[in-house]
Amino acid sequence: MSFKEYFRIWSQCSKEEQDMIESSLILRKVKKQTLIHQGDLDCTGLLVIKSGQLRAYSLSEEGKEITLYRLFECDVCLFSASCMMKSIQFELTIEAEKETEFWVIPFDTADYLMKKSVVFANYINEIMSSRFSEVMWLMEQIMWKSLDKRLAAFLVEESLLEETETLKITHEKIANHLGSQREVISRMLKYFQEEGLVQLSRGSIELLDYERLEELSE
Amino acid sequence: MSFKEYFRIWSQCSKEEQDMIESSLILRKVKKQTLIHQGDLDCTGLLVIKSGQLRAYSLSEEGKEITLYRLFECDVCLFSASCMMKSIQFELTIEAEKETEFWVIPFDTADYLMKKSVVFANYINEIMSSRFSEVMWLMEQIMWKSLDKRLAAFLVEESLLEETETLKITHEKIANHLGSQREVISRMLKYFQEEGLVQLSRGSIELLDYERLEELSE
Repeated sequence: MSFKEYFRIWSQCSKEEQDMIESSLILRKVKKQTLIHQGDLDCTGLLVIKSGQLRAYSLSEEGKEITLYRLFECDVCLFSASCMMKSIQFELTIEAEKETEFWVIPFDTADYLMKKSVVFANYINEIMSSRFSEVMWLMEQIMWKSLDKRLAAFLVEESLLEETETLKITHEKIANHLGSQREVISRMLKYFQEEGLVQLSRGSIELLDYERLEELSE
Repeated sequence: MSFKEYFRIWSQCSKEEQDMIESSLILRKVKKQTLIHQGDLDCTGLLVIKSGQLRAYSLSEEGKEITLYRLFECDVCLFSASCMMKSIQFELTIEAEKETEFWVIPFDTADYLMKKSVVFANYINEIMSSRFSEVMWLMEQIMWKSLDKRLAAFLVEESLLEETETLKITHEKIANHLGSQREVISRMLKYFQEEGLVQLSRGSIELLDYERLEELSE
């Protein structure tokens, strides 16, 4: 599959726009844990993901983290081009959670197209609406949903992503995803174990009752 | 002052677009506490605020609230036209906090212009970026900032908005703004009183030490 199949609005672009994108396009491959974007330090451009997985998260001054959303194949990473949008007044960090391959539409090209093409501008708009929705969902979770539900939802999602019921992940890392503390997560996981939902062992968490975890997360 | 002075991109619109906006424009005045938008029940259009104050908030299934942001003179209310953007997957409620006068750019006009005009599409984009930034700021506050700081920030902001140091507001209402509970807010206010920051009396809160409240909120 080529870029055209990954970029949803390709057929709506004019020949001239297509040529412009194609000639500026850069294909990159990064290792797991590579930092793709941090704060407003860089402005690479739009990233169109070919394979792999990116994680966008917010980082507190004290170094605490919370995962905002994840990006997969065919998703477009917008905030690596956040300087295109002057009204974006927040910073987030984007890292590769797996080995990831993506195309870069460089900043200059993306910025030019956004100001010139109504199709492109509306596409950016749509991507921003999606990310905004994901963050709103997360905020509602944090505000209105208790940690047990969020932890259950995280374990279920992680199991689907990794295609296994035995997760190799530390309590510290889960805490970072959920914006919580290691001790709090460990206590809750122990409670889950007592309930027969999971089996804990050094460095891994086995999901014993996927269905009940899914129910709990709803 | 006329609409042109309130609508920042007026001079960038073509004559045809200006005529279209002008002929569809509706001026409305609503009383304090009027619900302007709720969930996805309506799709009025874009609102351009002439005077007054709107509040956008999120509502939990149990009826708990948290204020997301406020809109003032010259601000544009986007989510009263959220059906324009199919990727918006969340619901919020917008109410008038004061008597408010605004122009409505009806949905049909706004939707047509967004799909046709790159200036208009980029403007919508910019407004969305601003709102997104406000929500991210709030989320960071909730995640990383303790309630005392948030409460101090709220009192300072409220005092500036109302142009008084004696706030007529219930603890219940503050709890709704901050997504907290009345008991929690009352306890914290009592602590503020002990610290000499405020003076509590039935139905009002007097700010005794504005400067220290401001310091605390930073």
